[in-house]
Amino acid sequence: MVDKSVKNEYIIAPNTNNTGLYGTVSGIDQSGIETAIDVIEERPLTIYLNSQEVVTAMTIGDYPQYLAIGFLYNQKMLKKEDKISSVDFDEELNVVVVRTSLKTNFEEKMRKKTRTSGCAVGTIFGDILDGLDEIVLSDQKIYTSWMYDLSRKINTTESLYLKVGAIHGTVLCKGNHPVCYMEDVGRHNAVDKIAGWMLLENISPQDKILYTTGRLTSEMVIKAAQMGISILISRSGFTAWGVQLAKELNMTLVGRLRGKRFNCLSGTHRLIFDTDS
Amino acid sequence: MVDKSVKNEYIIAPNTNNTGLYGTVSGIDQSGIETAIDVIEERPLTIYLNSQEVVTAMTIGDYPQYLAIGFLYNQKMLKKEDKISSVDFDEELNVVVVRTSLKTNFEEKMRKKTRTSGCAVGTIFGDILDGLDEIVLSDQKIYTSWMYDLSRKINTTESLYLKVGAIHGTVLCKGNHPVCYMEDVGRHNAVDKIAGWMLLENISPQDKILYTTGRLTSEMVIKAAQMGISILISRSGFTAWGVQLAKELNMTLVGRLRGKRFNCLSGTHRLIFDTDS
Repeated sequence: MVDKSVKNEYIIAPNTNNTGLYGTVSGIDQSGIETAIDVIEERPLTIYLNSQEVVTAMTIGDYPQYLAIGFLYNQKMLKKEDKISSVDFDEELNVVVVRTSLKTNFEEKMRKKTRTSGCAVGTIFGDILDGLDEIVLSDQKIYTSWMYDLSRKINTTESLYLKVGAIHGTVLCKGNHPVCYMEDVGRHNAVDKIAGWMLLENISPQDKILYTTGRLTSEMVIKAAQMGISILISRSGFTAWGVQLAKELNMTLVGRLRGKRFNCLSGTHRLIFDTDS
Repeated sequence: MVDKSVKNEYIIAPNTNNTGLYGTVSGIDQSGIETAIDVIEERPLTIYLNSQEVVTAMTIGDYPQYLAIGFLYNQKMLKKEDKISSVDFDEELNVVVVRTSLKTNFEEKMRKKTRTSGCAVGTIFGDILDGLDEIVLSDQKIYTSWMYDLSRKINTTESLYLKVGAIHGTVLCKGNHPVCYMEDVGRHNAVDKIAGWMLLENISPQDKILYTTGRLTSEMVIKAAQMGISILISRSGFTAWGVQLAKELNMTLVGRLRGKRFNCLSGTHRLIFDTDS
């Protein structure tokens, strides 16, 4: 079932040989027979921006630097123009500290917000919606054949999902080529790791397609928009607000992609039908 | 496929007639043919505890009061002994305000924390783990036949999941009877709504089983423990830390329950095998 030749297309593919990402647990099955099954790891990772503790995320633990930077960027706590001076990961403490040359706007904002409302979670959410109308997404097209290729390639790539399960995946693609495949227990972490990688490696979003195993919710659409992604694809379904936001953002949203079937509920003008279904 | 007789068992069952919970969106399918599909609603709900803004959750929008109380309770911001004086939901503002007779311990804590770390998300997480060792879960048993009954009944209950998809469900059960079935776009919201209902309706957790469609992660196990639930069942898989926590808590964890197959990775002593598989 696993198509090894596919791996050549990836710059980053899942590393199923990293045994630190899963462990074997013994239990019993429906017959009362002892079984040992592989389960995915899940670790807390606390993210700091300079001296500010921001969040503790639950993650499988690979690519903590990408996760931290992608998270801060997708939450608009870090901007592209902020110069990152260092990203330090302490494996024992499960802490990653992102440092910038200058204090970020966020730290000042945080201080102000916390004086009034105590916790910034809700207010940060409001801030994120605020900037969305400034985003202009690229006008690239996508062939239906690319979608079917991507779906097949991604689903047959050796992954923690195929090996262990209980995990989400997100894949950055170009044309019909998967480029960077990240997995995590939280679907948002997988997207954030892609965002962090793109930022640090200076990858342009203009000609990229983002594929996710998770549902196309408002948060997923907002993250993709922050990243400059114009085409977002999922094997799962939609939420109403996810669709509405995608329409407002002029983002192409393809859901329920399985085999050669899909629904496109936003941005249909980017689709080119080059295969019979 | 839908077994209507099941509904009699529920005190609260999914209300698929509530058309406010989903909307119809038009798009195109793989043949380029226009299609209209039902998608689940997703709305922000901002939760206040007295004058303190706590969080903005994304929810389908039913039972905002249960969600707010369950969330605050599961985050240990609200304790059982805190007397709730009112729970007000403002439908236009999407705000729910939980008021207590006396100021809660949480508000003082929040003020202290935010002075040092700015946002309480990370530190609250630490607090939650702190109290876990005091939890003593009931010693109830579960027959394998109950599990198969529950799986069949829940999977054939009319639900937003069957109707619209892209949604998680959590069901509080007693013996082989599903009692309260909540759904939401976030699997944690569905659990929180159950917790809120149990708290307001004074439902004992001692003889209850919690079924969820979501994965058995650390957060899910912690929530179940907070609620006093000793048996947690899912059709999905496990994470390593979820299993480890369940073992430490002496909680029975059954995952991958499909038809008459399952894995039990913690608390196997509560299982009684009364059916051949």
